[in-house]
Amino acid sequence: MAGLKKQVFIGTFISSNDSRNLDYLHNTVICVDGEGRIVRVDKEHGTSDQPEETLLRSLGWELSEVDIHVAKPGQFFFPGFIDSHVHAPQYANVGIFGKTTLLDWLEKYTFPLESSLKDLAKARRVYGSCVRRTLAHGTTTAAYFATIDVAATNLLADICLEIGQRAFVGRVCMDNPAICPDYYRDESAAEGLDKTRQTIQHVREIDPGFKLVSPILTPRFVPSCSSESMRGLADIQKEMDLPVQTHISENEGEIALVAQMFPESGSYAKVYDDHGLMTRRTILAHAVHLSEGEAQLIAKRGSKISHCPCSNSSLTSGAARVRWMLDKGITVGLGTDMSGGYSPSILEAARQAALVSRHVAMGLGGADPDKERSKLSVEEVLYLATRGGAEVVGLEDRIGGFDEGMEWDAQLIGLGSVDEDGVADRDGNVDMFGWESWEERVAKWLFNGDDRNVNKVWVKGRLVHGREYKVGCGDGENGYT
Amino acid sequence: MAGLKKQVFIGTFISSNDSRNLDYLHNTVICVDGEGRIVRVDKEHGTSDQPEETLLRSLGWELSEVDIHVAKPGQFFFPGFIDSHVHAPQYANVGIFGKTTLLDWLEKYTFPLESSLKDLAKARRVYGSCVRRTLAHGTTTAAYFATIDVAATNLLADICLEIGQRAFVGRVCMDNPAICPDYYRDESAAEGLDKTRQTIQHVREIDPGFKLVSPILTPRFVPSCSSESMRGLADIQKEMDLPVQTHISENEGEIALVAQMFPESGSYAKVYDDHGLMTRRTILAHAVHLSEGEAQLIAKRGSKISHCPCSNSSLTSGAARVRWMLDKGITVGLGTDMSGGYSPSILEAARQAALVSRHVAMGLGGADPDKERSKLSVEEVLYLATRGGAEVVGLEDRIGGFDEGMEWDAQLIGLGSVDEDGVADRDGNVDMFGWESWEERVAKWLFNGDDRNVNKVWVKGRLVHGREYKVGCGDGENGYT
Repeated sequence: MAGLKKQVFIGTFISSNDSRNLDYLHNTVICVDGEGRIVRVDKEHGTSDQPEETLLRSLGWELSEVDIHVAKPGQFFFPGFIDSHVHAPQYANVGIFGKTTLLDWLEKYTFPLESSLKDLAKARRVYGSCVRRTLAHGTTTAAYFATIDVAATNLLADICLEIGQRAFVGRVCMDNPAICPDYYRDESAAEGLDKTRQTIQHVREIDPGFKLVSPILTPRFVPSCSSESMRGLADIQKEMDLPVQTHISENEGEIALVAQMFPESGSYAKVYDDHGLMTRRTILAHAVHLSEGEAQLIAKRGSKISHCPCSNSSLTSGAARVRWMLDKGITVGLGTDMSGGYSPSILEAARQAALVSRHVAMGLGGADPDKERSKLSVEEVLYLATRGGAEVVGLEDRIGGFDEGMEWDAQLIGLGSVDEDGVADRDGNVDMFGWESWEERVAKWLFNGDDRNVNKVWVKGRLVHGREYKVGCGDGENGYT
Repeated sequence: MAGLKKQVFIGTFISSNDSRNLDYLHNTVICVDGEGRIVRVDKEHGTSDQPEETLLRSLGWELSEVDIHVAKPGQFFFPGFIDSHVHAPQYANVGIFGKTTLLDWLEKYTFPLESSLKDLAKARRVYGSCVRRTLAHGTTTAAYFATIDVAATNLLADICLEIGQRAFVGRVCMDNPAICPDYYRDESAAEGLDKTRQTIQHVREIDPGFKLVSPILTPRFVPSCSSESMRGLADIQKEMDLPVQTHISENEGEIALVAQMFPESGSYAKVYDDHGLMTRRTILAHAVHLSEGEAQLIAKRGSKISHCPCSNSSLTSGAARVRWMLDKGITVGLGTDMSGGYSPSILEAARQAALVSRHVAMGLGGADPDKERSKLSVEEVLYLATRGGAEVVGLEDRIGGFDEGMEWDAQLIGLGSVDEDGVADRDGNVDMFGWESWEERVAKWLFNGDDRNVNKVWVKGRLVHGREYKVGCGDGENGYT
């Protein structure tokens, strides 16, 4: 990634100030060095299309050595989205779940597809489309579950590095023959741990220092794992200080199964804790039906939660209580959870997080003081999609905002406009009439925006996605260099 | 509309057989006459790109006088969607609702915008974009609430006729000074009724026989209407046999208000019934909190319900129990309810109907036999979007399917594909790998499809929408004439 040109971005930058407020920086300049790092945020810039001599001089930069990117009026830069829970192999199944719930969904749709990706040509097709499609939706960082297959997992890491998406790539560990089918299971805990080490070693070879792609330890979920497997993964975690990702308390049948398998632990969360997997670097997906005690344990251990509203609604898992989690001091981000979730888009996850929070509110009595509080605002769900997700994956110092010292993981958002006869420019599904405040523009984007509004995407300073068919936005016509 | 060329459509046609099953007709020919009527459905066609001589001869048609439209492999024709509840003036506000619920949402966002559309230039802009945008999403029929303004309401009817969307256009009646603001209200019941007659007369002049555009009587909702106004509208209904549209039981505060205003009626539904407005031609939007008795009354009267899941979730109104309504024998269709609902798309409404039905299921205990039954399938929500909606607006004999004798209100759907390296053709948000069954293709379309998949839209045989930027689908390149 080194050796990029220095870059200067000029225009409106919107990002989360804190969990409840967006920061709107207009007429601002952000300078990004050749390593993709934000070295200067200049809020006093004015409306010029050129950075000031004095700014560049203070950085020791020459105008001739920088690429300048200017957002047009109405466009804005936004931090890249972080998908803190997604199954790359399942991308081929998005939208296909019928009326199943978690356990029969795994058997009917998911294990057969995942297993089939040991065919590397098929894996390349599915993983390539997943990485490109999520990037097109503005996802600059993804925490991926791959499959149990070493070669296919390594291929996913290769593809992320090649295309340029920041990623955590985990080989899935699942060795319990009572739950995992014969055709798709680690032969033993030892074999699973060995294969996991092979994928870690591969990522170490292709991206030393894990600058863009990192391995992540991935016990699928308690029912699929032996104690030996979970303990072995905890040992690797301590040995290498790696992140961990898994599922927790998604579905009532699953929870009953866990209680039956590990009666001595007393709760789903405690099973992970008893096996050394409840760490500060652990991402717990779903967490729909947590008890008070489990939430307290998670908060105490500093583990993080990935909220997956599309999936939780689709598979009839439940409505996760995000406000309740936040009140406990737990860090929360968003996950698409494809293909339990039907959408590759974190914007859709944010939209559904807002809607599902209203379903949580509906479930409370009219006099309950938490009824109104349960609702998540536009600002809050966009926080979850960016800074919240960054903290969930442990990169809050590097991504999720536009702070000096962070890396340039960003998307350029453009919204359409309507002329006097009501004819829209067809540039996406968001129509602007021109009288909207910036807050209203962002609300319209959240609720009707899609990948058509994502004009360009950068990861660590590198342009990794651009729309080909953008009306009036071809390179050279709109101020981009 | 008369004087269209005769048309022949060849390819795959998918439509609702009954409320639980889709009918997949492959290698089929549908012949549409110059009035836009389906005169022949030939299921034995084979794979030729030309209609057979014998078929044309049996219709008395010459090959030279027909336009032939061939769906490419993977594309399919689907009935146009029916939006049975939508506020055209509110289109400019989609996505903008903050944390409001119904009554403060009306005051804060909705009445000011609606009132401002007495400016006809602004009305043209908003209505034009609403009609074009909903057509682009495949909505061939819409039941529109306009505003209280006669000229602006007439303009909406003009625009629908000009652009070619089948529509019901209603001037909104609201004369209760206790609820309606001074700046946006009928001066009296008499004035409101007179203005309503003016809009009916206008539609009669521009579309005699209401072949494409029809007036619809539109008391906004009980709280905004005097008894005199509701009775007057009921009189017009009987006099002219017109359809009626209104809201019912959307929000708990609204229901309490109605109980306070009309204590003698005993229920929200009974208020409409007591005023003669609960007819077979009445569309009741929302119906979230109906009692058993109200549902029985609605079923007995043969009134219809427009289910608006996007709106009900956004405004924290509640989760409407569609299975429960269907079990009572009530006819149900879908409404976008913009801008209580955030989306112009009935496909999005269908998707949310599926998800919200799962939230209804989540609210029931695990042992409740209705838990599993509450869930709506892919096939069922697409039924609601087409045949269900057709019945709600009273046009079940003319639209919603591909039966002989119906009119050609249809959309041509195309889905994208992924190549061997995982590169998608970028033609929308739905990626096909080629191994999907037709049922799976439809599920993928429901959950990730959008207006990009709507290649062409016809109403009553007339092509009213086509995508300009379709990859590899320009006219002349894909078999279209």
